[in-house]
Amino acid sequence: MLRASERALNGWSAIPSPFLAEAMAHQGFDAITLDMQHGLISYDSALAMLQAISTTDVTPLVRTASLDPAAIMKVLDAGAMGIICPLIDNAAQAAALVSACRYPPAGGRSFGPTRAQLYAGAGYMAEANDTILAFAMIETADGLRNLDEILAVPGLDGVYIGPSDLSFTHGHDPVTGPDHPEMLARIDAIRDAARRHGKYAAMHSSAIDYCVRMWDRGFDMVTAPNDNRLFGFGAGMLMEAMGRKPGAPQPASGY
Amino acid sequence: MLRASERALNGWSAIPSPFLAEAMAHQGFDAITLDMQHGLISYDSALAMLQAISTTDVTPLVRTASLDPAAIMKVLDAGAMGIICPLIDNAAQAAALVSACRYPPAGGRSFGPTRAQLYAGAGYMAEANDTILAFAMIETADGLRNLDEILAVPGLDGVYIGPSDLSFTHGHDPVTGPDHPEMLARIDAIRDAARRHGKYAAMHSSAIDYCVRMWDRGFDMVTAPNDNRLFGFGAGMLMEAMGRKPGAPQPASGY
Amino acid sequence: MLRASERALNGWSAIPSPFLAEAMAHQGFDAITLDMQHGLISYDSALAMLQAISTTDVTPLVRTASLDPAAIMKVLDAGAMGIICPLIDNAAQAAALVSACRYPPAGGRSFGPTRAQLYAGAGYMAEANDTILAFAMIETADGLRNLDEILAVPGLDGVYIGPSDLSFTHGHDPVTGPDHPEMLARIDAIRDAARRHGKYAAMHSSAIDYCVRMWDRGFDMVTAPNDNRLFGFGAGMLMEAMGRKPGAPQPASGY
Amino acid sequence: MLRASERALNGWSAIPSPFLAEAMAHQGFDAITLDMQHGLISYDSALAMLQAISTTDVTPLVRTASLDPAAIMKVLDAGAMGIICPLIDNAAQAAALVSACRYPPAGGRSFGPTRAQLYAGAGYMAEANDTILAFAMIETADGLRNLDEILAVPGLDGVYIGPSDLSFTHGHDPVTGPDHPEMLARIDAIRDAARRHGKYAAMHSSAIDYCVRMWDRGFDMVTAPNDNRLFGFGAGMLMEAMGRKPGAPQPASGY
Amino acid sequence: MLRASERALNGWSAIPSPFLAEAMAHQGFDAITLDMQHGLISYDSALAMLQAISTTDVTPLVRTASLDPAAIMKVLDAGAMGIICPLIDNAAQAAALVSACRYPPAGGRSFGPTRAQLYAGAGYMAEANDTILAFAMIETADGLRNLDEILAVPGLDGVYIGPSDLSFTHGHDPVTGPDHPEMLARIDAIRDAARRHGKYAAMHSSAIDYCVRMWDRGFDMVTAPNDNRLFGFGAGMLMEAMGRKPGAPQPASGY
Amino acid sequence: MLRASERALNGWSAIPSPFLAEAMAHQGFDAITLDMQHGLISYDSALAMLQAISTTDVTPLVRTASLDPAAIMKVLDAGAMGIICPLIDNAAQAAALVSACRYPPAGGRSFGPTRAQLYAGAGYMAEANDTILAFAMIETADGLRNLDEILAVPGLDGVYIGPSDLSFTHGHDPVTGPDHPEMLARIDAIRDAARRHGKYAAMHSSAIDYCVRMWDRGFDMVTAPNDNRLFGFGAGMLMEAMGRKPGAPQPASGY
Repeated sequence: MLRASERALNGWSAIPSPFLAEAMAHQGFDAITLDMQHGLISYDSALAMLQAISTTDVTPLVRTASLDPAAIMKVLDAGAMGIICPLIDNAAQAAALVSACRYPPAGGRSFGPTRAQLYAGAGYMAEANDTILAFAMIETADGLRNLDEILAVPGLDGVYIGPSDLSFTHGHDPVTGPDHPEMLARIDAIRDAARRHGKYAAMHSSAIDYCVRMWDRGFDMVTAPNDNRLFGFGAGMLMEAMGRKPGAPQPASGY
Repeated sequence: MLRASERALNGWSAIPSPFLAEAMAHQGFDAITLDMQHGLISYDSALAMLQAISTTDVTPLVRTASLDPAAIMKVLDAGAMGIICPLIDNAAQAAALVSACRYPPAGGRSFGPTRAQLYAGAGYMAEANDTILAFAMIETADGLRNLDEILAVPGLDGVYIGPSDLSFTHGHDPVTGPDHPEMLARIDAIRDAARRHGKYAAMHSSAIDYCVRMWDRGFDMVTAPNDNRLFGFGAGMLMEAMGRKPGAPQPASGY
Repeated sequence: MLRASERALNGWSAIPSPFLAEAMAHQGFDAITLDMQHGLISYDSALAMLQAISTTDVTPLVRTASLDPAAIMKVLDAGAMGIICPLIDNAAQAAALVSACRYPPAGGRSFGPTRAQLYAGAGYMAEANDTILAFAMIETADGLRNLDEILAVPGLDGVYIGPSDLSFTHGHDPVTGPDHPEMLARIDAIRDAARRHGKYAAMHSSAIDYCVRMWDRGFDMVTAPNDNRLFGFGAGMLMEAMGRKPGAPQPASGY
Repeated sequence: MLRASERALNGWSAIPSPFLAEAMAHQGFDAITLDMQHGLISYDSALAMLQAISTTDVTPLVRTASLDPAAIMKVLDAGAMGIICPLIDNAAQAAALVSACRYPPAGGRSFGPTRAQLYAGAGYMAEANDTILAFAMIETADGLRNLDEILAVPGLDGVYIGPSDLSFTHGHDPVTGPDHPEMLARIDAIRDAARRHGKYAAMHSSAIDYCVRMWDRGFDMVTAPNDNRLFGFGAGMLMEAMGRKPGAPQPASGY
Repeated sequence: MLRASERALNGWSAIPSPFLAEAMAHQGFDAITLDMQHGLISYDSALAMLQAISTTDVTPLVRTASLDPAAIMKVLDAGAMGIICPLIDNAAQAAALVSACRYPPAGGRSFGPTRAQLYAGAGYMAEANDTILAFAMIETADGLRNLDEILAVPGLDGVYIGPSDLSFTHGHDPVTGPDHPEMLARIDAIRDAARRHGKYAAMHSSAIDYCVRMWDRGFDMVTAPNDNRLFGFGAGMLMEAMGRKPGAPQPASGY
Repeated sequence: MLRASERALNGWSAIPSPFLAEAMAHQGFDAITLDMQHGLISYDSALAMLQAISTTDVTPLVRTASLDPAAIMKVLDAGAMGIICPLIDNAAQAAALVSACRYPPAGGRSFGPTRAQLYAGAGYMAEANDTILAFAMIETADGLRNLDEILAVPGLDGVYIGPSDLSFTHGHDPVTGPDHPEMLARIDAIRDAARRHGKYAAMHSSAIDYCVRMWDRGFDMVTAPNDNRLFGFGAGMLMEAMGRKPGAPQPASGY
C-alpha cells in the first residue's frame, strides 16, 4: 500500500461487527484499522473482522491497546498487516514495537503465523519483515519531546499522530484542541520531522472537514472519522431531513 | 408509543451489533425494529440488542423471519414490545400472528416472559395483551387482494407496508418500484383501508427523501433507512468530500 | 435414568450460560433440561451447555421451542438425551414428535449424530431409539381432552405437564392456577392416565414447596424451579438478611 | 461453477469454526457446503463462515436443516450461492425449494440481499435467479419413488443423493448400506434420471475411497468426507505412526 | 453513589452472562462489580454485561485482572463507573491505578470514551475525573505494610479489602481465615486507616452472615456473595427441602 | 499424568472451536494444550474448550501468550491443569512463572478457583500446588544460555522446547532448522540438562515423523502436530487420492 508510494485513506473501526467491517471495506478506503484501544474490539472480534476485511483487497491494520509484544504478535499472526501502537514516548518503546513486528534477526517476533500465512500466502515468512507496517503513535508531550530519537529507530515505518491526546497533554481540550493553531503547528512539525527521517507521517481525524484538511496538508496516511461517527453523520442527515433534533454526537473513539 | 396517538419514527436495524443498537437508540428514533428476516440478526443477536435498546426508552420491535409462532413468542419473551410479521397473505395468517402475540383467552401465547418481565416490570402479564403491537406486513399481491379480511382480524394492531416486495410481486423493480405512481396509489390505498378499520398503517423506506415523503403522507409509523444505509450515507459524504468515488450503495435490507 | 426405574429430579435451565450449566450439574440433579422455548437459550447456547453438562453424569434433556422435527433432530445430534416438546394437542402431533426422535424403521430421524456419538460412544446408533426420551407436554385444554390418544402413541415415553399454560387455557391464572384444586385434580388425572398406559408422568414446578409436593404426589420426574429462580431465592435470602426489600421475583421461565 | 460445465469437488463443513472454514477453502475444493442439518452450524456460525470462505474464490453452499423458506432465504441473503435441501419427497416440496431460491416472477423469494450483494456485487439482483443453485436431496424411499416428478420441477438445478438416509429408509445400515450393490444400483439410477432431465446429479460421501469411486462414477458434484472426518484421518495417521490405538472414528455428520 | 454519602451494597458478578447481570441488577444492589480477575468474565463479556446493567440505575464497577492501564482504560471506555484493582502493594502501584482512571492533567488516561459517553451523556469528559471510582485492593502482607502510603495517594477514592488473599499471605486459610480474630483485627485496622485519610473502606464477603456482619462493622461498601454463590444458596435450599444431599459449595470467586 | 511417571503424548490446539477440542480429546492424546500464543484462542475460547476437554479424562494444559501472571492465574482458575509459558530467558522469569502457578506460601497465586474447583473437586486448594504443571519454554539463545539457572528454580516442573524459535534465534530457518544436526544437538542437550535437574523435558513438533522421532529420543512429553495440521494431513490424503494438487500446507501455529 504505502510502499507503492501512494497516499492512503484509512478507515477506522471501533464497532465490533464483522459485517460492518466487510461493509466498510466496500466504501473506498485503502486501509482499515481495527481500534483495539478505544474501540470496543477484542481479540475475538478482531479475528473475525480481519477475515471480513480479507474478502476485499483493503489493507487491514490494528491499533493495539498498548505496547504489549504478546498482543501485537497475536494480531499479526491473525493477519493484521500493520500495527499502530499508542502512547510511544521514547526510542526504547519504539524499538520494542519494532522488535515485536519483526522476525529474527531484525526483531524478536516469535514464529507461528497461523492465519497470516493463509491470508498472505506461502511467502509470508520471507516477506513479513518488509511488508508489516509499524507505526508509533505520537500523542503525548513526552513523545513529542523525544520525536527525533523515536524516528531514528531502525525498522520503524512511521509515526501516527493522535491529535486529541496530544492536545490533552499540552493543556488543550481533546475535542477542539486538534484545530488550535498551536497544535496544528506541532502536528506539522511532526510531519516534517518524519520526512527528514524518511518515514511516513500518518494523521488521525474525527470530522470530515478535518480529514480533508489533513489530506491536503500532505500526510502519507489520513484516517477518516470512525465507523460510529460515519453512522452518526448519516443518522444526523436523516433527523435533519425529518425536522427532528439530532441525537448526541457519536463519541469519536480512537483519538 | 403509538397508543399515545403520536406518530412514530422507526429505526431499522439489520447489523447484528449490540453496541450499534445502543448507539442507534440515542439518535432520536421513537422505536427501533430488529430485522430478523433480511437483516443478519439471529435470536442470540436480538437478545443482546434488546438489552442494548433497553438502556434507553426507545420501544423495541422485531421483524421476525416468518410467521412462526414459536419464534414470535421467543422474541416476545426476550423483551420485544411488538412484532412486524412478513408476508401475511390472508386473514388466517393474520389471526395466527395475533394468536402468537396474545395470552389466553385472546390468543395462544404460551406463558413464560423470562426477560420481558424484567424489562417491563411485574405488571407485564396483565398488560402484555394491550401493549404488544402486532403488525401484519402487506407485501404481496395476495396480501393486497385480501387486505380487508386481514384488517378485520380482531386484535391486529395494524399493517406494515413492504413496498419492495409489493412492487416485485406486481411486476415492478423492488428498488425503483416503490416510487412508481401505480405503487404509490396502492400504498395510499392500504393506508386508507387501515384507517377505515381503525388500525395503524406503517410504512417502510430505504432512502431519506422517501422517508420524509412517507411521513408527510400521514402514516402512523414510518421506518427510516436501516443502520447499514445510514452508515453508507455517512461514508458517502466522506468520500465525496475527499473527492473519491463512493463505494457501492449499501444494500437496503428489510424492504 | 428413568429406565432404571428410579424417579428423577430435573433441573431447569433458562439462562444461556455454559458455566452456570456446569455449576448446576454439580448441585445434585439427576437430569437438567435446557429450555429453548421460554428460556433464553438458542442452538448455539444449547450446544455449549450440552458440552458443559457432559463434564458430569447428569442426563441432558432439551425442551424445544416447538414441534419442529429439524430442530428436534439438531439438538439430538448435539447430544441431548431426550426431548420435552411443548404444546402437544393430539396424537398426530405426538406421533410426529416420536418420529423425529427415532431412527428408521421406528421413525424418520435423519442419520448424522455428529456430537451425540462422541458423547454416548460408538454404540449410539444401535441404542438411540431405546435411550432417547420423548416427552409430550400436556398444557392445553385440547391436549388434555386428547390425552388418551396421545398416550396411546407407540414410542412415546411419557407426558410432561405444563401447569401454567394448562391453567391459563382453563381460565385460571398461570401463576396461581397450578395450585387451584381444580387444576390439581386435572394434574393428578394426567398422572393416573399415564400410569394406565405404562408411560412416565413428569411435572413442572416454579417454587420449592410446590416441587416438594409434586415429588410427594408420585410423579416419575419432577422439575425444580429454574436456574434463574434459584438465583433469585439466594438473592432474596441475602436481601432479607441485610434488611433490604427484595427485588422483584425472578420470572419463572418454562411453565 | 457447475454452469461452466466442469465437475466439482465439494468440501463439507460440520464444525462451527470460521477459521477452519477459511483453512478448508485453501485445500483445493471447488465448493464448500456448510451443513446446518447434521453439522453443528447455526445461522450465526454460518454467517461468519460465509465471510471466511469469501476470502477465497471457493463457491459457498449451505445444506439447510429443513425445507423452511425463511431459513433458506436468510442464508441466501447472507451470501450462500446455493442450497442443498434435505428430505425432499415430492414435487410440491421441490417446487417450494425452488420458490424460496428465486425472486419473482420465478419464485417467492423476498427481496433484501443484505450481505449477498456485498459479496456478489451490484448485479446480484439481476443474476441471482440464474446463479443460485437449488439441489433437492433424494434420501428417502418416498423421494426415490417420486424422483421423476421432482426432476421435472422447473428451476430445480439438480438432485443431491444422501446415501445413508436412503439406505436407512430402504432397510440398510446407514454406514455400510451406501456400498451395498442394491443401493449402488439405486444411486446410479438417480444419476441417470437426472441426466435424462438435464439436471445435475450430486453425491455425498464419508470416506476417501468412496469419494474417489463416486467421482469416477461420473457425478457432477461429489462431496468429500467432512472437516471432522478429515481431521480424524490426520489424527489416525499420527496415532498409527506413534503405535497407539486410534480414537473412535469421527462421526460423519451430513449423510 | 458513594459520593452521596450513602453506604453501598455491592453485587459481585463472576458468571459471564448478560442476562444474569440484568437479573442481578433487579435484586436490590446499589452497585454490581464485574469480576475480571477470578470471575470468568472477559472484555467481550464485560461489555455486554455493562450494557445489561445499564438498563437499570445500578452503578457498574469492574474488578480488573491486574494493574494494566490499557485494560483499565478499555473497561472505563466501555462504561465502567469505577475500578477495583487487585494486588496493590505500594504507593507507586496505587498512583498508576489513579493515573489510568483520570484524564490529564490529573492522570494519563487516554481520551476516547466510546461507550461511556453514550451511557453517561455529553458531560462525561468533564465529570469523569470526579465520578469514576478508583479502589486499591489491600490483600497482601506488602499492601498492608504500605497501607499509609497507599492511602496518601492523591485521587485514590478508597481501599477494597480482599480478606482471602490477605489471610493467605498472613499464613491463614483463605476460606476460614477472614473470620479469624487476628484477621478481623487487621481488617478493622484497614477500615480505620481509610477513615483517617478521608477515604472509603470497602469489604468483600462470600457468605451471607459475614456480609451482614461486615455491614454492621461500618464499611462504606460491602460486597455480597457472588452470583454463583447466590445461585448455590438457592439450589441448597431446594436440595434440603427435597431431602437430598446438597452439591459441593459453589466456589466463591473473587476473594 | 506425568507424575504417574508415564510419558505423555500431547495434542496441540490452535483452532478456537469447543467441538473440535472435544473431538480431539477422543483421539487418544494424554493431554491437550490450548495454544493462546500462536493459536487463535482467546480467553473466551479457552474457557469453552476447557469445558469441552473436561468431558473426557484428558489433561488440559494452556500455552499462554506470555509471562503475564494475571493471564496465567485466570486460565488456571478456568480449569487448566498446567501452563506452558513461552520465551523464558532466565531464572527470574522462570520464578515468576512458578509464583503465578502456586498458592502461598510457595507462590503468589491469588485465591479464587472459580471453575477449577468444579472440575477438580473440593480438594483443589490443597492439591493445586502439587498437581498444576509449570513448564518454561526454552526457545531463545538467551534461554539456552541460562538453562541451568532456569532448571534450578524451585517448583518448576520442567522445560518445554520450542524448536522453531530456538532455531530462528540461532540463525536457522524456523521450519527446517529443528531438524538440523546443530539444533538437534542443542535439543538433546536441553533434555539431558533437565534430567540432571530431575525435571521434565517436553518437546514440540509439527510433523508426524518428527513427532515419532522425538518420542523415540526419550522426551517425557512430546507434542503432536496441531489440530490444523492434522486436518491438513487428512485433506492432503483426500486430494492425493482424487489426483488433485493439495492445498498449501497448513501453518503450524505453535512452534
